[in-house]
Amino acid sequence: MRLHGYFRSSAAWRERIALNLKGIPVEHEFRHLRHGRQRTPDYLRLNPQGLVPALETDDGAVLTQSMAICEYLEETHPEPPLLPGPPLNRARIRAFAQVIACDIHPVQNLKVLARLRAMSFPEEEVTGWARWVIQDGLEACEALLEGGEGPFCFGAAPTLADICLIPQLGNALRFGAELGGLTRINAVAHACADHPAFIAAAPERQADAD
Amino acid sequence: MRLHGYFRSSAAWRERIALNLKGIPVEHEFRHLRHGRQRTPDYLRLNPQGLVPALETDDGAVLTQSMAICEYLEETHPEPPLLPGPPLNRARIRAFAQVIACDIHPVQNLKVLARLRAMSFPEEEVTGWARWVIQDGLEACEALLEGGEGPFCFGAAPTLADICLIPQLGNALRFGAELGGLTRINAVAHACADHPAFIAAAPERQADAD
Repeated sequence: MRLHGYFRSSAAWRERIALNLKGIPVEHEFRHLRHGRQRTPDYLRLNPQGLVPALETDDGAVLTQSMAICEYLEETHPEPPLLPGPPLNRARIRAFAQVIACDIHPVQNLKVLARLRAMSFPEEEVTGWARWVIQDGLEACEALLEGGEGPFCFGAAPTLADICLIPQLGNALRFGAELGGLTRINAVAHACADHPAFIAAAPERQADAD
Repeated sequence: MRLHGYFRSSAAWRERIALNLKGIPVEHEFRHLRHGRQRTPDYLRLNPQGLVPALETDDGAVLTQSMAICEYLEETHPEPPLLPGPPLNRARIRAFAQVIACDIHPVQNLKVLARLRAMSFPEEEVTGWARWVIQDGLEACEALLEGGEGPFCFGAAPTLADICLIPQLGNALRFGAELGGLTRINAVAHACADHPAFIAAAPERQADAD
């Protein structure tokens, strides 16, 4: 398989963690977003949306949208599970992941912030926007973890929830979001920081990191 | 089951279509967003995020996040399938659905537009924002359908893709997005307009419509 990604993209970061957790070997093709490498004609043929990640499978199919790719990896390589347990448990893990993948990340991504700048927003308000989106969303995430067992979001092993959380915390740090009160989330971050699949997926470890 | 929704919410609209397609009977509890009925203490106990939809299952569990609820319905009531076919086909349907659920809808929802207004944006630019997000996203959706078979997004029967598309087209209409060039999407809209599950789920047919 070949993953088209970018070291700093949270969505590509999710795939790196998922592939590592499942032990799936992958070639990396780096698409530097600030250099427009996601807008080249060859890449737009693979992914008309011009976003990363995209995953080329062994049989030449191209998959887009990070959450759809994670579900595909889960269906084709079920062990270890990213969505363990009965449907209700899987629904709770997916709901947590989707607070991040739907309600936080797309509202604070590069494209939206660029649009705010193009509308003459001062840089301070652009950063404030990202901080607002992230804090509000992560507080909802913290509430969804209440009463659950650690050390990961949903128990003893990482799931799709942790895969989404860690890259989002990377963004939170960049924008200076205030996370002090998020006890469970901070404990999960601590657990993931010691896990080899998360360590190897970190942006600063990627070949395209600047 | 009991669905907490709002006639105009695209995310609740998705659940109404999914429940209708699968023939699952449901009680409706309406949470009028403009009257703050999603922020009452009893509702925040069910869904700390204060968003609709939330689904109370027969055994008293509460599910949130519309895409996670759809996946739960698919796992517990597999027929007719919202995600038919082998993993690759399911990944394509999910990717299409997620362009809408991640990249379009959350960036043009009530909360984001209210924030733009609060930042003193003129109404015209707020509407322009929503139009930009919707047109850009639906063009990506159209590209994902290229070469496929109709009359629905992915073949002869509606899937999760159509469930996400139709409510998003409702928003497109409200904001005056330009959809003339989206041939496949317009054909799908036509097919869904004649389908009883979609007809019964329309906002204007709900008991809380104003």
